[in-house]
Amino acid sequence: MERQASRPRIPTGIEGLDSLIAGGLQQDKVYLVSGEAGTGKTIFCLQYILAGMSRGENAVYVSIDEKPGHLLEDAASLGWNLQKYIDDKKIALLDVTPYFTNIRVGKEKVVDVREIVADLSKQVRRIKAVRLVIDPIAPLIFGQEAATQVQEYIRSLIFSIEDNLRCTTLITSGIPSGTFRLSQHEIEEFVVSGIIVLGVNKLERGRVRSIYIRKMRGTPTDLNDHIFEILPQRGIVIRETGLYG
Amino acid sequence: MERQASRPRIPTGIEGLDSLIAGGLQQDKVYLVSGEAGTGKTIFCLQYILAGMSRGENAVYVSIDEKPGHLLEDAASLGWNLQKYIDDKKIALLDVTPYFTNIRVGKEKVVDVREIVADLSKQVRRIKAVRLVIDPIAPLIFGQEAATQVQEYIRSLIFSIEDNLRCTTLITSGIPSGTFRLSQHEIEEFVVSGIIVLGVNKLERGRVRSIYIRKMRGTPTDLNDHIFEILPQRGIVIRETGLYG
Amino acid sequence: MERQASRPRIPTGIEGLDSLIAGGLQQDKVYLVSGEAGTGKTIFCLQYILAGMSRGENAVYVSIDEKPGHLLEDAASLGWNLQKYIDDKKIALLDVTPYFTNIRVGKEKVVDVREIVADLSKQVRRIKAVRLVIDPIAPLIFGQEAATQVQEYIRSLIFSIEDNLRCTTLITSGIPSGTFRLSQHEIEEFVVSGIIVLGVNKLERGRVRSIYIRKMRGTPTDLNDHIFEILPQRGIVIRETGLYG
Amino acid sequence: MERQASRPRIPTGIEGLDSLIAGGLQQDKVYLVSGEAGTGKTIFCLQYILAGMSRGENAVYVSIDEKPGHLLEDAASLGWNLQKYIDDKKIALLDVTPYFTNIRVGKEKVVDVREIVADLSKQVRRIKAVRLVIDPIAPLIFGQEAATQVQEYIRSLIFSIEDNLRCTTLITSGIPSGTFRLSQHEIEEFVVSGIIVLGVNKLERGRVRSIYIRKMRGTPTDLNDHIFEILPQRGIVIRETGLYG
Amino acid sequence: MERQASRPRIPTGIEGLDSLIAGGLQQDKVYLVSGEAGTGKTIFCLQYILAGMSRGENAVYVSIDEKPGHLLEDAASLGWNLQKYIDDKKIALLDVTPYFTNIRVGKEKVVDVREIVADLSKQVRRIKAVRLVIDPIAPLIFGQEAATQVQEYIRSLIFSIEDNLRCTTLITSGIPSGTFRLSQHEIEEFVVSGIIVLGVNKLERGRVRSIYIRKMRGTPTDLNDHIFEILPQRGIVIRETGLYG
Amino acid sequence: MERQASRPRIPTGIEGLDSLIAGGLQQDKVYLVSGEAGTGKTIFCLQYILAGMSRGENAVYVSIDEKPGHLLEDAASLGWNLQKYIDDKKIALLDVTPYFTNIRVGKEKVVDVREIVADLSKQVRRIKAVRLVIDPIAPLIFGQEAATQVQEYIRSLIFSIEDNLRCTTLITSGIPSGTFRLSQHEIEEFVVSGIIVLGVNKLERGRVRSIYIRKMRGTPTDLNDHIFEILPQRGIVIRETGLYG
Repeated sequence: MERQASRPRIPTGIEGLDSLIAGGLQQDKVYLVSGEAGTGKTIFCLQYILAGMSRGENAVYVSIDEKPGHLLEDAASLGWNLQKYIDDKKIALLDVTPYFTNIRVGKEKVVDVREIVADLSKQVRRIKAVRLVIDPIAPLIFGQEAATQVQEYIRSLIFSIEDNLRCTTLITSGIPSGTFRLSQHEIEEFVVSGIIVLGVNKLERGRVRSIYIRKMRGTPTDLNDHIFEILPQRGIVIRETGLYG
Repeated sequence: MERQASRPRIPTGIEGLDSLIAGGLQQDKVYLVSGEAGTGKTIFCLQYILAGMSRGENAVYVSIDEKPGHLLEDAASLGWNLQKYIDDKKIALLDVTPYFTNIRVGKEKVVDVREIVADLSKQVRRIKAVRLVIDPIAPLIFGQEAATQVQEYIRSLIFSIEDNLRCTTLITSGIPSGTFRLSQHEIEEFVVSGIIVLGVNKLERGRVRSIYIRKMRGTPTDLNDHIFEILPQRGIVIRETGLYG
Repeated sequence: MERQASRPRIPTGIEGLDSLIAGGLQQDKVYLVSGEAGTGKTIFCLQYILAGMSRGENAVYVSIDEKPGHLLEDAASLGWNLQKYIDDKKIALLDVTPYFTNIRVGKEKVVDVREIVADLSKQVRRIKAVRLVIDPIAPLIFGQEAATQVQEYIRSLIFSIEDNLRCTTLITSGIPSGTFRLSQHEIEEFVVSGIIVLGVNKLERGRVRSIYIRKMRGTPTDLNDHIFEILPQRGIVIRETGLYG
Repeated sequence: MERQASRPRIPTGIEGLDSLIAGGLQQDKVYLVSGEAGTGKTIFCLQYILAGMSRGENAVYVSIDEKPGHLLEDAASLGWNLQKYIDDKKIALLDVTPYFTNIRVGKEKVVDVREIVADLSKQVRRIKAVRLVIDPIAPLIFGQEAATQVQEYIRSLIFSIEDNLRCTTLITSGIPSGTFRLSQHEIEEFVVSGIIVLGVNKLERGRVRSIYIRKMRGTPTDLNDHIFEILPQRGIVIRETGLYG
Repeated sequence: MERQASRPRIPTGIEGLDSLIAGGLQQDKVYLVSGEAGTGKTIFCLQYILAGMSRGENAVYVSIDEKPGHLLEDAASLGWNLQKYIDDKKIALLDVTPYFTNIRVGKEKVVDVREIVADLSKQVRRIKAVRLVIDPIAPLIFGQEAATQVQEYIRSLIFSIEDNLRCTTLITSGIPSGTFRLSQHEIEEFVVSGIIVLGVNKLERGRVRSIYIRKMRGTPTDLNDHIFEILPQRGIVIRETGLYG
Repeated sequence: MERQASRPRIPTGIEGLDSLIAGGLQQDKVYLVSGEAGTGKTIFCLQYILAGMSRGENAVYVSIDEKPGHLLEDAASLGWNLQKYIDDKKIALLDVTPYFTNIRVGKEKVVDVREIVADLSKQVRRIKAVRLVIDPIAPLIFGQEAATQVQEYIRSLIFSIEDNLRCTTLITSGIPSGTFRLSQHEIEEFVVSGIIVLGVNKLERGRVRSIYIRKMRGTPTDLNDHIFEILPQRGIVIRETGLYG
């Protein structure tokens, strides 16, 4: 299949995935990694920013559900030494939890998302990052009442990230267990340039981990489920195509 | 089947589809293209406006979830050079995102839809367009509280587009993943002149792309699912009828 | 089966249907035609009013989701010339869309249904109509907050139509896709004298159009599904009984 | 099975049913007849009050979804002449629709249920009725906001009917199509002395009408489905036990 | 299985059940009996308090959905003479319906649950009851807006009953038909010491009555369904283990 | 599989579980134990704190749905003598119910979670606990209106527990019956370091108890269901892997 690929492609570093998406993600676009709790979203993102290291592509990792310290441990459990890259200022782990620890019962929260995007911008410029992870995106969306307001807000947020940060970005979304949704507010699905869905499926032989490409603009894709494993050092490794038995 | 086809038909340019709908869409009517994220709605619309080029039918493409620049890339990835037509003023890509980027937490949005329809009207007249795409329609619907108000609003919006713009129009609607709905507010389904549904179905052999004609007023139609592929240069190509295996 | 049929029966003109409902609908009562988008509700209603022509029974058709002009085209596509009857003042197509095109964001709508019923009454008397179609009924129901208020409102509306208009009336209701409901507010189901449900069902052999009689007061009925086709000139024609394979 | 049946039993007159419920309903208690639209609730109630005629038990029928005139026609279509009993003041058909025809958009409805129960009481005493039908019960329940308020209101309403009216009473409830509920507010199910559910089931051989006894306090019951038909003169007649094929 | 059973066990009197729960319920704790309408909850509770009679354990029965008079009849239909025990002041039937019969449309209800618990306490002390039934519990829970407030309220209510009344208590909960829930507010499930679920299941051979032990703190239990019958004199009698065919 | 396990692992003491999670939970992190009513959550937690006793690891148990006295009985029923450890100040059972027993109808509840965390902190320091159980977590989450506020509140609460208490913590969550959710507010799932789900599954052979590891950060895990039993003295014992038959 011939195609005009004018925009460079950024490899994810996930073994078996880049060949399914014409070499990688499109530079400077925003992608959604979606999955229920425990499906591997954070490992996917860690692998993604580590893939940048060998290519000289620095990264910012915004961690909201995990303390940066814990993230380092998670990486270490797979044999990845993130600390070294942090010391070399190639990776910056951002802890935005201070924004979230001042909760009193009933106190209303007023945060301007442009404030957060501005901070992000500073960090990105500081280490000249070209890869960005926001894990997860949902906490940056709050304070809206009407459903349609939330939709416009999210569209605006994702566009701001695209316009101002100039990074190839992964945002993660937790699928509430027991539903078949891909995201919390739905609109993220339609605005991002691609969606990768991680899952844990119950087959006859037991539970297996699965990944599939839900959407990938401007890229011929494979719609099938692929079974993967999480291995030390290598992280997520795609093994098989198809979810049988 | 004989029929009185007094209103001209406008071919969609989708291989295998026009023969299923008596040659094409009815001139100046509004049609809904519906599907979950990643099912090909945008490619469908691009193909539609490109089909107008060889017939001298100019088009306006209102893109809300994708920046016009990205749309050009998506087209380019399939080998379509939209830029040329834009330069020749045969296609106008409208970016309405400025309406949506001024979001502050809690700020209320007040937009008069007649303002947007008036802008659209200007653009349509400027390049004498007869084909129009609004992708997606949902962001133009906001600010209504009661469900019945939303319904009347949408009916009114679609009628305004029919009355004022004199274009054969496609509006797209994203089906929230994991539901079986066709549109966000439901009412669109009943007001438009036809509905085409794109999907990705999981069969035994793997996932396939499907299209079916949900509704087509004044036209004898085929109710079946048809499997299609997305190929370079040709875009959406219908391959098979029926969803088996 | 003997029965006392004191109230005259009004044939629907749908081939294969009248024999299933003791010859037709009961004079001056209100019936609900229900179905998802694209199932044939409007064609059913057009066929109904055309059936009145050969019997000298004039009709008023209130079209809300379709402009009267489009309705004429839909009829024409099946070979039916409605314009002739309109010119002869045997059919009146009412366009109530003017009530619905003054929508501003946030403007509250206040319409008194008695105003609409009064207008309808004028039209009915003007051409001495005895058949009436309101397609669909939902837009005439708005502005109510509490669910119970809506129920009383609808009951009241349907009773007003029965008392004041003296027509055998069809009201249509769009079933939201992906649900198993019959109507939008549910109460219509219990107040009308009968319910006919149109559908599109997916069988092994493909999709087929189906019709079944959900309810028919004072009439022995057949509860089965019947497969039908839409043919030129003849419109809806019932072919088979039962939904097999 | 021996039992102490101190409270007299009131036969329903439904062939095949009374033998399943120890001879009939318990005197002066309230029973719920539940079913989707078109399942035969009204016919059940008509048969019930006619069964009283041969026993010298007068009845009041409160019809809310059907005009009394229509009810007479429904009865006539099965060969039942209600008018005669009305003339002899053995049956009173109450039309409560006047309460419901003063609906303006937005006007708030304030009705005191004790007013309605008081009216009912007058009618019951006037013809010395001992059988009562309220078809359906839902319209008498309105104006409550909180769900728990509705529950107490319904409990109170049913108790008032029991205490003040001294009739063996049937109340009907329409099951919204596509749900598996038995009643609109749920609480009715727990307060009434028994529940009979009518349905239309789709078996391999086609659709059949079914009836089953959901609950029957103080009475040994049969939990199975029974298939029935609606025949002229005889009305509902139970044919088979079990829903097979 | 050896165990330290320091707290005495109170037999339910349900044949076949006490052997499944180590001899009975734990003294002074609160248990939930859950089931849809018509599944036998009230009979279960009547049997429970009658079981106390032969052991000299007096009981208070709080009946909310049934008038005490009706309860006596239900008992009588199975051959149980409750009146005798009431006369001997061994059973007290409490009618709390006066709290619920002052409903006007829109009138707000303010009842302090401590008032009801205080009344209960008086009755319990008056006849020195050690068994208590509240059938059902839901009406004592009202007036709360936020879901979390309701949860704390229920927790508080159940703890108050435990602390102040010193009775081994059954509370019943009606499962809304067509759902798979165990209780109305969910929280009851987690606070009570045990849950017994009654049901009516549709097997191939017809419908059967089932009972299973959902939860039983401090007691080794059997998780299976058991089929039971309701027989005169003996009431609920467990027949089989397992739900087959 | 090699891995860098810098953070010590804390055995749960559940036979057959620790080998599935690389020896135990990660020190000082927060884990979610999730399950419907009656699935064994409390026994799991009791076993967890008892496992600490032989290792000299003291524990605080915050019990909200059960009075501490009842908890002691539950433990005793399995042969565990908690009282001894309480007397030796190795285990502290906290009763937070006083916070919840002052409920009046309509009274608004204002509690500052930092107050509760501060109390907890005192207790933890008092006996130098390093294991903590909060059973369940939901009651500590209240008073928030908007869903997004609740999410930030929970994130904040769990982070506070991690930062201030320095205990390896289990929080429990009751899954509402009949749903497939893992937690009440969903957000807990994404913030905790791991999730263990307990269940009762209906197989052909009857009901069995199951456990599976939903998520376990920084730890290679087994995704399968494991069948377990509850035995005296030993508590939860994993028997089989897989849920077959």
